[in-house]
Amino acid sequence: MASNESHRPDTAVLVVHCPDTPGIIAVITEFITANGGNILYLDQYVDKVNGVFYMRIEWDLEHFIIPKDKISDYFSTLYGQRYGVKFRITFSSQPQRMAIFVSKMSHCIYDLLARYVAGEWNVEIPVIISNHPNLSLIGDQFGIPFEVIPVNRDNKVEMEAREFELLDRYNIDFIVLARYMQVLSEEFISRYPERIINIHHSFLPAFIGAKPYHAAFDRGVKLIGATSHYVTTELDAGPIIEQDIVRITHKDTIPDLIKKGRDLEKIVLSRAVEKHIQHKILTYNNKTVVFS
Amino acid sequence: MASNESHRPDTAVLVVHCPDTPGIIAVITEFITANGGNILYLDQYVDKVNGVFYMRIEWDLEHFIIPKDKISDYFSTLYGQRYGVKFRITFSSQPQRMAIFVSKMSHCIYDLLARYVAGEWNVEIPVIISNHPNLSLIGDQFGIPFEVIPVNRDNKVEMEAREFELLDRYNIDFIVLARYMQVLSEEFISRYPERIINIHHSFLPAFIGAKPYHAAFDRGVKLIGATSHYVTTELDAGPIIEQDIVRITHKDTIPDLIKKGRDLEKIVLSRAVEKHIQHKILTYNNKTVVFS
Amino acid sequence: MASNESHRPDTAVLVVHCPDTPGIIAVITEFITANGGNILYLDQYVDKVNGVFYMRIEWDLEHFIIPKDKISDYFSTLYGQRYGVKFRITFSSQPQRMAIFVSKMSHCIYDLLARYVAGEWNVEIPVIISNHPNLSLIGDQFGIPFEVIPVNRDNKVEMEAREFELLDRYNIDFIVLARYMQVLSEEFISRYPERIINIHHSFLPAFIGAKPYHAAFDRGVKLIGATSHYVTTELDAGPIIEQDIVRITHKDTIPDLIKKGRDLEKIVLSRAVEKHIQHKILTYNNKTVVFS
Amino acid sequence: MASNESHRPDTAVLVVHCPDTPGIIAVITEFITANGGNILYLDQYVDKVNGVFYMRIEWDLEHFIIPKDKISDYFSTLYGQRYGVKFRITFSSQPQRMAIFVSKMSHCIYDLLARYVAGEWNVEIPVIISNHPNLSLIGDQFGIPFEVIPVNRDNKVEMEAREFELLDRYNIDFIVLARYMQVLSEEFISRYPERIINIHHSFLPAFIGAKPYHAAFDRGVKLIGATSHYVTTELDAGPIIEQDIVRITHKDTIPDLIKKGRDLEKIVLSRAVEKHIQHKILTYNNKTVVFS
Repeated sequence: MASNESHRPDTAVLVVHCPDTPGIIAVITEFITANGGNILYLDQYVDKVNGVFYMRIEWDLEHFIIPKDKISDYFSTLYGQRYGVKFRITFSSQPQRMAIFVSKMSHCIYDLLARYVAGEWNVEIPVIISNHPNLSLIGDQFGIPFEVIPVNRDNKVEMEAREFELLDRYNIDFIVLARYMQVLSEEFISRYPERIINIHHSFLPAFIGAKPYHAAFDRGVKLIGATSHYVTTELDAGPIIEQDIVRITHKDTIPDLIKKGRDLEKIVLSRAVEKHIQHKILTYNNKTVVFS
Repeated sequence: MASNESHRPDTAVLVVHCPDTPGIIAVITEFITANGGNILYLDQYVDKVNGVFYMRIEWDLEHFIIPKDKISDYFSTLYGQRYGVKFRITFSSQPQRMAIFVSKMSHCIYDLLARYVAGEWNVEIPVIISNHPNLSLIGDQFGIPFEVIPVNRDNKVEMEAREFELLDRYNIDFIVLARYMQVLSEEFISRYPERIINIHHSFLPAFIGAKPYHAAFDRGVKLIGATSHYVTTELDAGPIIEQDIVRITHKDTIPDLIKKGRDLEKIVLSRAVEKHIQHKILTYNNKTVVFS
Repeated sequence: MASNESHRPDTAVLVVHCPDTPGIIAVITEFITANGGNILYLDQYVDKVNGVFYMRIEWDLEHFIIPKDKISDYFSTLYGQRYGVKFRITFSSQPQRMAIFVSKMSHCIYDLLARYVAGEWNVEIPVIISNHPNLSLIGDQFGIPFEVIPVNRDNKVEMEAREFELLDRYNIDFIVLARYMQVLSEEFISRYPERIINIHHSFLPAFIGAKPYHAAFDRGVKLIGATSHYVTTELDAGPIIEQDIVRITHKDTIPDLIKKGRDLEKIVLSRAVEKHIQHKILTYNNKTVVFS
Repeated sequence: MASNESHRPDTAVLVVHCPDTPGIIAVITEFITANGGNILYLDQYVDKVNGVFYMRIEWDLEHFIIPKDKISDYFSTLYGQRYGVKFRITFSSQPQRMAIFVSKMSHCIYDLLARYVAGEWNVEIPVIISNHPNLSLIGDQFGIPFEVIPVNRDNKVEMEAREFELLDRYNIDFIVLARYMQVLSEEFISRYPERIINIHHSFLPAFIGAKPYHAAFDRGVKLIGATSHYVTTELDAGPIIEQDIVRITHKDTIPDLIKKGRDLEKIVLSRAVEKHIQHKILTYNNKTVVFS
């Protein structure tokens, strides 16, 4: 199912961080404007405590005189060593490829796919992977291959090997766990650093692990939350991208929390995925800088 | 400083819980209406899982034929044993007496006192107690005795004895810890069960204990919270009355969190105190029922 | 596509309003419990200013001794005239039938259908009606007839006649306008009083009418809203069911507002539809009572 | 009453807007860093539609080689004409002087003064002006002259003349209307352009004018709002600085709305005042740019 985003102008996005240096904004914006780039967006942030400069800058490539395949080289040569710059350059003409992992609950994946087919995002979704066949109908509905890989604790190595094969075959850039109820192996996680987005159904770091709505109910909280984060090898402890909450009362039973939580989970996950697609997230010290 | 609330009608509030029984609402409302009471407010809730019925009912006493000082007796005799009812009856004509405990931060106490002098609450505040003299000016401003009791870990028994004497002398019904930075002894807490309200500057149960804003900053959360709860002997684990959050970003430093948190803390604490003053809170199994 | 809700117990819902009378709660709850009904839910509200009593009560029919098809008769005979009661009794075993009207935007209809196929709601959706063919794929995806009725200002009488025929044929109880961009005729509206739910993309009564996001942008507001309401003959002036807002900044362009608004619109509309399906809405004086 | 802010470093704030020009950020940051200024904060925004560049930049003056009283001259000479720059330079060592106007309601003024005496803001508040004597106690409490000017429709010219005299005598930079219930004359407003901050108790542009809570109640909205804005000669139509809302239900009476609104009003007003004190607001086309 094709995205309707094909008429967007061809733009480049540079995401960068480096030790904070006087004039660093001037240096980088000069690189773009002096070479014919029209800056469409600039957001920057200086972590004064740690002395780190972060920037995201996007520009129109139409009159930019450096060829696309050379920009990275040039930028690296001119500034990489001199300013200790770490950077990533991406192009809107090359949408990222996203895999969705799902188990039995459909609210998050429907929210993602509804945005996808409406053309809201510059992304391709070539495959859905599930440990259960329950939602295979969704693959049919949206014309996306739905691969059932019945992974469990005992067959994880073997099954993840099949998943790696699929992810490679479909040339996947990043993975969204849309209420996927399996813990990934360390090997899996290390293959996709800062490229696996999870939704946890609590306001982390409260209620880490299984059954957070039950734990929230037992504690008698007055708000429940959802947290989207990058997956790291420590459970529910990766860099947080987005969180939100909804108010509950003493009248709400556990099924009520689960129901209210669904709306929260899907919106929080989709907001995080959108920021990732737009290259608006930088991570540092297990935290995220999320540009506006 | 007198409240301007003196022209409110004289009303009674009955707060009750008992095993859920068919027709229990009818029984209780009948007790009031059959005896000439005009019901002004009724809110009820049934915990289906545990089979417990909760109700708060308020009525105008003008034409009520049972004398005020007999209502409790009558209600107990007629329904107490028969329905296993636990209840509390209070009268708007007898405002509760509230003590404020404070340390060095003034935002919560100013918010409480501004409501008090504006007559928003049917309450008396005859004394402020502090472990530091810093805010004694506030006592002068509002004409309320400001007692400095320099309690610390080593002199807690002796100093709390002085506090008990003050609380008794001023005939205090309940205590509000308005960012009071001392842990109360078990003896203190057991003297005022469900009558000590604290504000904790995090979204409990996340970040229990000291320096929650520092912990929130380190974890990289995207929302910070505040929680008002009744104090129990387990630290920050008492029944939660009210919580709220505010959004933060990567740009916010620890001082920013502290600043944003102040507005949250004072509003969350004042909301909880108001519910307590209005007898709208029932506790059960370390959780609260908070009527609307 | 079948709902998975078939194992819910058979329950009745009584929604009622009448002049406020002492003991009215007792009378109605007695009707249910004395006849073997187990009350699962009760919420009531008294409008003291206008002297109107509102209640929603739901009970398990398993041991209820009055046959389902006689309950309405009995209740009417016993209480209708005596208390001036207006009421509606519905049964969970008879799900309402809902039609979705849509134009070219898909975010609201996907949100509704994702809930439908997940079995979140006790409802049937037998038909989608659109004035454009653009979203016909959605009918295919979900196996629901998608009827294109190209209504415009000039052919409204004729085209609405076709719509009435469809609504009758599919035995439709209520209609959801999921960003349907056509004004309905007075005749249409009068056929479905309090049974047409619209989503307006502003915080009503601000920005009534067309292009509210443009108007919000021009005014420089810092929040945008969405409002779900019953349709009446006065544009955007019907009883409000649900509203919510999202924060914006000076950085947000009109396309940004439209994008942020989409998430708001779909959630606000779905919340309103859910309350309607659960018979939790009563209207009075062009306002709604929405039970919890 | 002295602020405890005296140990803050001496900093300069430059707030600037001009036609968007490639490299303009580089030019301005270069001006500061090349002359020994250490940039503490930078936020910028480009209005792509109108081609306007906005920036706020704050730097430490300790090693800045241009004397404070020359900075404005130098900046103007070097960039003013060349880039069409409009700008304002202020220094943290010269706190602004703020007057509070109040009528009979105390919640907003207490919130402002509580922050003031806690030293949250770099501001001086030398005078309170009121059209009623009711709140004169607050002047005593905080040691601030409380001037009663009994302005009404008939004596406005004469009374405002007395207000001008007071504002001049106290050397007032800007005015906060803390629920001041008098409309200012055009002459008054024109003396303090973008320097009078009002709080309106509705979600503007809904419910302009008097008694917005009554209007909100009549319309049956599900959220109420408050709006802080700069005062212009058109009633409630000035540039919006900050808005927020709170949820209400059918149970809330007009007094409930007024009560819930109070918390909203005071927080929204204080947030707006803080942004003004920090020189974080720029206005353009009757809208505001509010820096983070």
